[in-house]
Amino acid sequence: MPKLEKGLVQVYTGDGKGKTSAAFGLALRAIGRGLKVYIIQFIKGGFDYGELYIIDKLPNLKLKAFGRGKFVTHQPPEKVDIAFAEEAFQLADKVVKSGEYDMVILDEINVALNLKLISLKEVLELIKNKPKHVELVLTGRYAPNEIIEIADLVTEMKEVKHPYRKGCQARKGIDY
Amino acid sequence: MPKLEKGLVQVYTGDGKGKTSAAFGLALRAIGRGLKVYIIQFIKGGFDYGELYIIDKLPNLKLKAFGRGKFVTHQPPEKVDIAFAEEAFQLADKVVKSGEYDMVILDEINVALNLKLISLKEVLELIKNKPKHVELVLTGRYAPNEIIEIADLVTEMKEVKHPYRKGCQARKGIDY
Repeated sequence: MPKLEKGLVQVYTGDGKGKTSAAFGLALRAIGRGLKVYIIQFIKGGFDYGELYIIDKLPNLKLKAFGRGKFVTHQPPEKVDIAFAEEAFQLADKVVKSGEYDMVILDEINVALNLKLISLKEVLELIKNKPKHVELVLTGRYAPNEIIEIADLVTEMKEVKHPYRKGCQARKGIDY
Repeated sequence: MPKLEKGLVQVYTGDGKGKTSAAFGLALRAIGRGLKVYIIQFIKGGFDYGELYIIDKLPNLKLKAFGRGKFVTHQPPEKVDIAFAEEAFQLADKVVKSGEYDMVILDEINVALNLKLISLKEVLELIKNKPKHVELVLTGRYAPNEIIEIADLVTEMKEVKHPYRKGCQARKGIDY
């Protein structure tokens, strides 16, 4: 089983498009090298994303999505959304600590943190105590400062132009 | 053959990490929906990237990389680099105009434009005259203003933090 000498913590945040796509691109590169990747999606479960139809065909790549197919924006959050996010975090905790996967992608975890669906303290603990070889990738807008501080690599995706602003609808195969 | 009703022009630029990865993530989503994708890489040929080892295993996805395995930064550019970029553009032109591929990714074309390896006028022509259903994705830092103006969706990847700054080396499976 190939392992990284030193796994880093990468964050993709900001209001622009490409955060989740960048994480999936990283996953593709990693499995191309024989690394094992686990993608855990917060908030996204129940949605119909194009990438889900190809994941099963890829070696060394696992994905599990948590959520009820609804965008979560409520403050205070609803119990069902907290339960899904907590379940996602428990899995993340288990998968990271096992050291079995070389790269663990926590997709949209920043949003779950921002909505206070999960505890920042617990996530920081998980990052600090991760096995050395595990690469962690955290995505989602509104990454808390504490996450940015602890991360090794942070990219902000900035929206310069977006067709939704012009009333263009989300398109199957491109946006989902 | 599934086709998009309307293909847009997407640009991923900026100095941050994740531009090419985002494009590959988009490709993954598109082929998950049965769309056909062609990735043409400018400047990148001859490099050993992890994603190349998995591309062949994916359906409906083609990739061709042009270059001599060397980072191109010289101004004025060397003849050999112009020749590679010109060859890449000729293929891009053919692939886009054929309308056979639903998504065409021109990876690092912005850098090729910035280095004047290819003509901005020709690229703008290609964009303007593309078949309506073709989604075009252009990546690379230094996207010229004319490209940003003509694009429908533009994301700037901003480097907030990068481990290379701390002397960390590129890692196989993660960075290449």
